[in-house]
Amino acid sequence: MGTSLRSMASIDGEALAANDDYRSAVIDLLGVLAYGELMAFERLAADAALAPTIEDEAQLAAMAAAEFRHFSRLRDRLVEIGVDPAEAMQPFRAPLARFHEMTAPSDWLEGLVKAYVGDGIGIDFYREIATYLDPRTRDLVLEVCEDLGQSAFVVDRVRAAIAADPRVEGRLALWARRLVGEALSQAQHVAAEREALTALLVGDVGDEGTGMDLTAIATMLSRLTDEHSRRMQALGLAS
Amino acid sequence: MGTSLRSMASIDGEALAANDDYRSAVIDLLGVLAYGELMAFERLAADAALAPTIEDEAQLAAMAAAEFRHFSRLRDRLVEIGVDPAEAMQPFRAPLARFHEMTAPSDWLEGLVKAYVGDGIGIDFYREIATYLDPRTRDLVLEVCEDLGQSAFVVDRVRAAIAADPRVEGRLALWARRLVGEALSQAQHVAAEREALTALLVGDVGDEGTGMDLTAIATMLSRLTDEHSRRMQALGLAS
Repeated sequence: MGTSLRSMASIDGEALAANDDYRSAVIDLLGVLAYGELMAFERLAADAALAPTIEDEAQLAAMAAAEFRHFSRLRDRLVEIGVDPAEAMQPFRAPLARFHEMTAPSDWLEGLVKAYVGDGIGIDFYREIATYLDPRTRDLVLEVCEDLGQSAFVVDRVRAAIAADPRVEGRLALWARRLVGEALSQAQHVAAEREALTALLVGDVGDEGTGMDLTAIATMLSRLTDEHSRRMQALGLAS
Repeated sequence: MGTSLRSMASIDGEALAANDDYRSAVIDLLGVLAYGELMAFERLAADAALAPTIEDEAQLAAMAAAEFRHFSRLRDRLVEIGVDPAEAMQPFRAPLARFHEMTAPSDWLEGLVKAYVGDGIGIDFYREIATYLDPRTRDLVLEVCEDLGQSAFVVDRVRAAIAADPRVEGRLALWARRLVGEALSQAQHVAAEREALTALLVGDVGDEGTGMDLTAIATMLSRLTDEHSRRMQALGLAS
């Protein structure tokens, strides 16, 4: 295989059928996104119970319900390309469960920040990877992306909480850093174990055996980090 | 007011506008159903995380997602009749939260039985009350009803668990009794505090001040209990 998975995907819509590495990578990608949405659904729905008011509770529940729609769309796509969705998701069950175990919010504000950070990084990541996908998978990923961004209400709530008690800022800033740290830590485990997926995301192992496209991954991480910092500022938190 | 709320509702579709007692009762009814669905959504979604397999997890999550649709429809109806949904739900927040606090499943099987019992009693109760509602509210309640009944998969899972370990039966039968006991206990609190709602559900206080239609409520409770016993049998549990 001499062509990079990325260029194959962007040039050739039939890559999914023609190329085993690309197919493995897309199955992994759909699997991790689907299971990520399923767990986000479960956890956001549970976190809604922490809300001080019924309005807030309903709003976080609505975000959770959107995650279930995304899960369904991603699962359907796996079925469409002839894959057992549960099998595709299985490798990501433990790392995603571990992430949520390590980041169970202890109160409503922590739950809000987690929803906002997750929603934001989700959108950014979905957009980043869309470029490297065959058109049908790309359309699906972008469709899910458009349905995200329901977390704008969080900004008001967090800013009001900080205005009412400035000590909240330090605690939530620390919390947001922990969320990102745990996410990166689990992402590293996944990357180490899922070669095809990693190859798709960071560029491909080419003919020369030069390994990962480190420039591309560094640029992507830097974009994701910038966007995360921008969101932390919107919340009134130091990043 | 000499006519019973029930006959008024069944005869007159305009009862909602014309009769204050009926209007209060319907607001309470939509409020308790809406908040019940919202909390069921949160708890079922969280309970999905207890599933042994991803297939089971996705199936319970799908039931939870359906509860959110019901919540949205009931909330929209409250808005339609000019009521603040959060205000209508507020009186039922504490008793419903208390019910779920007292019945947090300690494992997957308890979560399954809770979902099945709740889904079943939900359908029965929705059908019971539909008769006494004005046509538009009735259509909505029946629509929600049709979307319930997603819990058939539970029967297989519980029967398989009992076959694998017969001791499970006694534990789950006890658990189901506790669920019903806690539900009745919270229902009694609600009934005592929400007069208009109670009047709608159990018949009306007529001219003679004879109080509740005790025959009707006894018959309804006996029907609900029969259906519950039938479901326990389906699960292989003594009721």
